[in-house]
Amino acid sequence: MAECLRIIPLGGNGEVGKNMLAIEYGADILLIDVGIMFPENDMLGIDFIIPDWQYLRDKAERVRAIIITHGHEDHTGALPYLLREINAPVYATRLTRGLIELKLKAHKLLDQTVIHTIKAGDNIAVGPFRLEFFRVCHSIPDAVGVGITTPAGLIVHTGDFKFDHTPVDGKPTDFAKLAELGGRGVLLLLSDSTNAERPGTTPSERAVDAAFDQVFRDAKGRIIVATFASLISRIQQVANVAARYHRKMVITGHSMSENVKIAQKLGYLNLPDDLVVKVEEAGRLLPSETVMMVTGAQGEPASVLARMSTGQHRQVGVTKGDTVILSAHAIPGNEEMIHRTINRLFQKGAEVLYDPIAPVHVSGHASQEEHKLMLNLVRPQYFIPIHGELRHLKAHARMAQQLGIPPQNSFVIENGYVIEFDEGEARVGERVPGGYVYVDGSSVGDVSPEVLRDREVLSRDGFVVAIVQRDSETGQVQSRPEIITRGFVFEREAEDLIAGAEEAVLDMVKNNGLNGKALRDKVKDTLAEYLYKQTKRRPMVIPVVLE
Amino acid sequence: MAECLRIIPLGGNGEVGKNMLAIEYGADILLIDVGIMFPENDMLGIDFIIPDWQYLRDKAERVRAIIITHGHEDHTGALPYLLREINAPVYATRLTRGLIELKLKAHKLLDQTVIHTIKAGDNIAVGPFRLEFFRVCHSIPDAVGVGITTPAGLIVHTGDFKFDHTPVDGKPTDFAKLAELGGRGVLLLLSDSTNAERPGTTPSERAVDAAFDQVFRDAKGRIIVATFASLISRIQQVANVAARYHRKMVITGHSMSENVKIAQKLGYLNLPDDLVVKVEEAGRLLPSETVMMVTGAQGEPASVLARMSTGQHRQVGVTKGDTVILSAHAIPGNEEMIHRTINRLFQKGAEVLYDPIAPVHVSGHASQEEHKLMLNLVRPQYFIPIHGELRHLKAHARMAQQLGIPPQNSFVIENGYVIEFDEGEARVGERVPGGYVYVDGSSVGDVSPEVLRDREVLSRDGFVVAIVQRDSETGQVQSRPEIITRGFVFEREAEDLIAGAEEAVLDMVKNNGLNGKALRDKVKDTLAEYLYKQTKRRPMVIPVVLE
Repeated sequence: MAECLRIIPLGGNGEVGKNMLAIEYGADILLIDVGIMFPENDMLGIDFIIPDWQYLRDKAERVRAIIITHGHEDHTGALPYLLREINAPVYATRLTRGLIELKLKAHKLLDQTVIHTIKAGDNIAVGPFRLEFFRVCHSIPDAVGVGITTPAGLIVHTGDFKFDHTPVDGKPTDFAKLAELGGRGVLLLLSDSTNAERPGTTPSERAVDAAFDQVFRDAKGRIIVATFASLISRIQQVANVAARYHRKMVITGHSMSENVKIAQKLGYLNLPDDLVVKVEEAGRLLPSETVMMVTGAQGEPASVLARMSTGQHRQVGVTKGDTVILSAHAIPGNEEMIHRTINRLFQKGAEVLYDPIAPVHVSGHASQEEHKLMLNLVRPQYFIPIHGELRHLKAHARMAQQLGIPPQNSFVIENGYVIEFDEGEARVGERVPGGYVYVDGSSVGDVSPEVLRDREVLSRDGFVVAIVQRDSETGQVQSRPEIITRGFVFEREAEDLIAGAEEAVLDMVKNNGLNGKALRDKVKDTLAEYLYKQTKRRPMVIPVVLE
Repeated sequence: MAECLRIIPLGGNGEVGKNMLAIEYGADILLIDVGIMFPENDMLGIDFIIPDWQYLRDKAERVRAIIITHGHEDHTGALPYLLREINAPVYATRLTRGLIELKLKAHKLLDQTVIHTIKAGDNIAVGPFRLEFFRVCHSIPDAVGVGITTPAGLIVHTGDFKFDHTPVDGKPTDFAKLAELGGRGVLLLLSDSTNAERPGTTPSERAVDAAFDQVFRDAKGRIIVATFASLISRIQQVANVAARYHRKMVITGHSMSENVKIAQKLGYLNLPDDLVVKVEEAGRLLPSETVMMVTGAQGEPASVLARMSTGQHRQVGVTKGDTVILSAHAIPGNEEMIHRTINRLFQKGAEVLYDPIAPVHVSGHASQEEHKLMLNLVRPQYFIPIHGELRHLKAHARMAQQLGIPPQNSFVIENGYVIEFDEGEARVGERVPGGYVYVDGSSVGDVSPEVLRDREVLSRDGFVVAIVQRDSETGQVQSRPEIITRGFVFEREAEDLIAGAEEAVLDMVKNNGLNGKALRDKVKDTLAEYLYKQTKRRPMVIPVVLE
């Protein structure tokens, strides 16, 4: 009897199957990608989020392989945390491997991890699975999708992809392989939905060349290009145009420097010997002879660009005559910080170019017409849109329906839901435990919802601690209560308010015979009520009774 | 000798001249709009922001008129606060006046305020100024721009505008008046820059009719339309299509109900008698017989739509078969909350339509081709782009330059800068004091930068208060310190950490002879260091020494 095939995207409420996806056939498990998620604006103080893989904990020895489709953080970043629990072999292309190794080294896990280097075109058997990797274009080189032959049928997983006919590295998505897989009969397509809401076709990476050429031709002063540290092809494009216009290039920031080093060493980045100079050397050149590559295209306050825009960067400032190019899209939630950075750069007198003012960025993800091409090349029997929020998956499933995939064969599911293929029939199974695990400082998972709720209250109206001292024998209050407050009112300007609060608590404490929790509750209520009446705000109130 | 003409946009770092703009000629002052700003994501706990009009405080009796161009919050919302200090007459059109009166009533200021009702076409002398109001299209009816003849020359202020040839109320922007003003020779144009980054032309309000018709024709279940409470024309459009498809309409939410009442009373909204029903009545109809108008198109957690999406609305939920239309654009900074609401609605099984999935909204502001038309109709000698962040103003000024306005005649300035016209020459003058005033609860302006910084720290890592009790005579520590913490770690799961912190403080306090501030500082450092070492987090640490 055939075993059951199960597809399980893992993680919390975010993008489905983006950070981690499990494929089970009988007792054997494949994992695809192990990435991190960045916190939303109301996940206060959280550094990043990893998927909760509780479901896999008692199945560690059944995991045959961890496939990493490409080297972006949201597909690789949680690997060091997973490998501590599930030490399965990792499969990755050369560049992806290089980037992963940096991470494992930092976590002192490199020695104990088995990594197999794969390349597009490889055909590898792992347990009951046969893996066929194929090249896809994305905003980082050496990205792959994978065909997975299981006893239950053939699965195609696209990874993150776009169809670029003229990518910077000259290696388009492998149409022929997709058509060949499609010809064999595909049971299930798992496909990237990031841009499923976007009509038309994503422009080729080459589209930004013309915009860059024009900027470099016209700019009289220094040029500063902000992009993602991992956007190797964009760095190559800037290098090409810099060489053409005889500018020296400075790479700033730790992450971008590391990525450039690895990509160059492995041959994914081709920089002429004398092109790159240190920031000190650039300081001795004319502004018109330099271009700086910086991070901070998302407006991150700690980034090089943000610090330049506020005048807080140690080595370089932004001045009149500079041209700043933001060559990246806004990750939703970051718009405000990006706009603020752009405004500050204008304030400093720089010329600033950004989407939609100038065509200086293209996305790394397929738009609607490309999704239709993917669906028509692969012609799957079943379809699970992945790599997107529910709204993206819905838009993607709507397209699949337009192309003739019956609605009951498309599964729009959230992370944790299982799609089971049994005797050729697919259905939604039970939900497995899972969710988010918050990483904050050195701790993984100990920031509970209670702590986040407290941070939320504190962020709105701050707190007030009232310390009441009583004689333990007589129960007499010895002095006015001590009031400590932060984030509520500016203490020095609110002396009357604080004095009134002390009075209110003192009055209450004197005139009752309460003790313990009842007394603390009463102090809290009295104080909260007094403060709301005076200010219409609701700070967190914490009563302390010392005896 | 001629007096000096001065133009002063007032407010903080936000949109320039949007919330408030002063025009001074000699001793006489005109104010245009007195609005509020909504806080950015990192202005923690702030309800809203009003402009700081400190500059005007000693000039109150010189203010001749307060002109309100239209009834949106960002142009009217701060009026009750201003009028307490500067009781000048207000000039507004009928609908704008109706909306302002609601506000003044709530602030008990209606009786003491003089309001003059004006209409497009009016020509009114106020001090040395002659005001000529002209109709502009915007996302609320009865919006106007104003031509201001001063002894120094003619100024044209557009208000918020778009050029809509087929607005829902049938009243297009007054091209002829703009051309006539242009023909007289305009010294200065002040023009809305909100969409100056957007190429092409903003579609007519009519463009959404087709999309709405299709939804109403096809929907089998209930329809829910979320939009801005003030978007009267959209409510009219929904009413028209609802009547066509025999659905009853429910208006929910306090702000939308109030606006509808006023607009209907004043004749700006034309609703058939039997169209609108109460939510209870709608409950007795089939879902296919109803449409609900709700607020919450920005994903605001307290809005009707957000509460419906999480199942927290008392009267109505969202279920499979419902169609939800988000007929509004995302205000930057709100994207995450909007996306979350959309995802939750999908989760509940609803069909959700929103930009860019369906053409269910158009902007109320002019795009680039309309800006060019405005500039060419008015043909000003000088140009100050207003109503936008620096990036918008820059984009607008770039267009003006393309149309032949010399760069030195365009002024891209921030709030608080003065443009002075003296003997026909314009120049940037000194900066006047100003900025933001935060409104939080009942207090206006007492949330200082210090308080916001504290909220920021508290939101990231919470706080730890350590209370040390010493005998006032012997200086001996009587017991282990009391540690209180919130938003840092989950106390019940971090007993060891807290015990260790108590120990660390106790050790330190026992072994030194410090007192007062030196002791408190030492407690703070000891604790901060211990906690960072243990958790890699930096909560706010507050030492309290009781003697």
